Amino acid sequence: MRTAVMGAGSWGSVFAKILAEAGGEVTMWARRESIAEAIRTTGRNPDYFPEAALPRNVTATSDPASALAGADLVVLAVTSQTLRANLTAWAGQIPADATLVSLMKGIELGTTKRMSEVIVETAGVDPSRVAVVTGPNIAPELVARQPAAAVVACTDLSRATAVQEAITTPYFRPYTNDDVIGCELGGAVKNVIALAYGIATSMELGENIKATLITRGLAETTRLGVALGADPLTFAGLSGLGDLVATCCSPLTRNRTFGEHLGRGLSLEQAQAATRYTAEGVKSCLAIRDLAHAHGVEMPITEQVERICHEGVDPKVALATLMSRQTKPE
Amino acid sequence: MRTAVMGAGSWGSVFAKILAEAGGEVTMWARRESIAEAIRTTGRNPDYFPEAALPRNVTATSDPASALAGADLVVLAVTSQTLRANLTAWAGQIPADATLVSLMKGIELGTTKRMSEVIVETAGVDPSRVAVVTGPNIAPELVARQPAAAVVACTDLSRATAVQEAITTPYFRPYTNDDVIGCELGGAVKNVIALAYGIATSMELGENIKATLITRGLAETTRLGVALGADPLTFAGLSGLGDLVATCCSPLTRNRTFGEHLGRGLSLEQAQAATRYTAEGVKSCLAIRDLAHAHGVEMPITEQVERICHEGVDPKVALATLMSRQTKPE
Repeated sequence: MRTAVMGAGSWGSVFAKILAEAGGEVTMWARRESIAEAIRTTGRNPDYFPEAALPRNVTATSDPASALAGADLVVLAVTSQTLRANLTAWAGQIPADATLVSLMKGIELGTTKRMSEVIVETAGVDPSRVAVVTGPNIAPELVARQPAAAVVACTDLSRATAVQEAITTPYFRPYTNDDVIGCELGGAVKNVIALAYGIATSMELGENIKATLITRGLAETTRLGVALGADPLTFAGLSGLGDLVATCCSPLTRNRTFGEHLGRGLSLEQAQAATRYTAEGVKSCLAIRDLAHAHGVEMPITEQVERICHEGVDPKVALATLMSRQTKPE
Repeated sequence: MRTAVMGAGSWGSVFAKILAEAGGEVTMWARRESIAEAIRTTGRNPDYFPEAALPRNVTATSDPASALAGADLVVLAVTSQTLRANLTAWAGQIPADATLVSLMKGIELGTTKRMSEVIVETAGVDPSRVAVVTGPNIAPELVARQPAAAVVACTDLSRATAVQEAITTPYFRPYTNDDVIGCELGGAVKNVIALAYGIATSMELGENIKATLITRGLAETTRLGVALGADPLTFAGLSGLGDLVATCCSPLTRNRTFGEHLGRGLSLEQAQAATRYTAEGVKSCLAIRDLAHAHGVEMPITEQVERICHEGVDPKVALATLMSRQTKPE
């Protein structure tokens, strides 16, 4: 199996390693030639997990066309908000029958589209050619080959199975699923809920209320999913509950860590300065709130996260608002 | 509202405090007169949370008849496996229209009955008179008045609402639910999954696989629940997902802590000696496995926990068995 991994960030680099360890021939595309060259010559990505040696069957290039040439799988691992621009440039170079695999967990600002929708639209491919890999997959644990399960979602089961086989290793166990909408939405909204969890963590709230936040967060995710045509049971699986719990419970994840800064009273700009990144959920919460409004779905946690991030609302006030909602049947 | 809290253990003591802070007149029944006397004279339970002053409207007795006399609510907070014997002795003294509230999260060994079933059978009351209070309610957090939500499950909504009102405080927010089976089962099985989580924790497994354990654990709980007539959606709520996540994620909980000892290689007897208790899940896993067999439901995590606890299987071998199950659609 020839695979192009388009993007040499954290998850792209680990995913390339998994593909290669599962036996594939992998070409990584890096935006900067210096990173591609370092991967070619040293077998390591100097920016992400430099301690991890990439297998010999991983090479790299900064030329998209040579990465894509002859690829059976095209793995898209750029940042969510740059997908459209990147894929517009690459569309003509994607092999005719390749499966396009999304690793991205965001919602496009402005259009409120899921990543697979952006792929279908921009690459001009049939939706059955697009797969999503998601689940509880914190990258540093996978670099260390700690066991993990994942989900490969695709409406075409034969493609899902092909991707599953391409990434199965003794430590990485993917399951197939045909609910692309549900799997993708779970991954996107969990970043927003993880921000809330991080805020609650640095406010020193207890496990009882943080478990309630996870429960209610998954409930509002499910409500939105059902409105968009997803199967509600998907959210109880690895792509919903599993990913949400791993992201919230690990102190290593970006969105939770970013939320902890906000919960300590830092402004959005101060938190960005402290972390040197903008957490995915900070952007996605705007698009998810818009999606919820468009479909008449109540998402109180997302709503409060958006207010904290973008309207300068004090996290203490936002939390009090959440807690004061009326008691009613569950 | 006159309330009898039958049992002065950890959760019973905290629940008495909540009832009193919500405005009720509370009489605690303690098995030992020395504990009842200490509560009466010092306003504190010397065995559980002695730092917490109980409100003046809490008193205590070691005489069940005087605790039960005139009670509108009878809260049952003894250990699961002693409920039948205790309630058989008390049955004649329970006021005719009192609501019986179960705080217990176990399944009776031998009969495989849920606590509410044991109550109905032993007290000879209509099932509509029995309510279950459950959810993510780790006791030390509630003693400190940290915010928490809970579920009051009863087939009679007016009784559920009466219990809800009797325990609502600014920090404790109960929701009503009519799925007694689902709420009760979630609370019982989570103790077993928390044992598995503790085992995984002391084996230094990562957040990815521990989140998968929670996800798969809730899935097998739901399967059993559906077979017993519960609503599958209940398990996505506070009594299922919420309680499971709080119990697994808090380092303070008994079942997780007990599991950590087992995961370090201690035998059941050694873990009992180290903790000075037997975790509820150690007993319940036998009854839950029997229930699953009787209904033809696969519960692979429960099965392995039972083997570790009662058949001396090495946790590493049990985990390898779980991980090697075939990859298939989720």
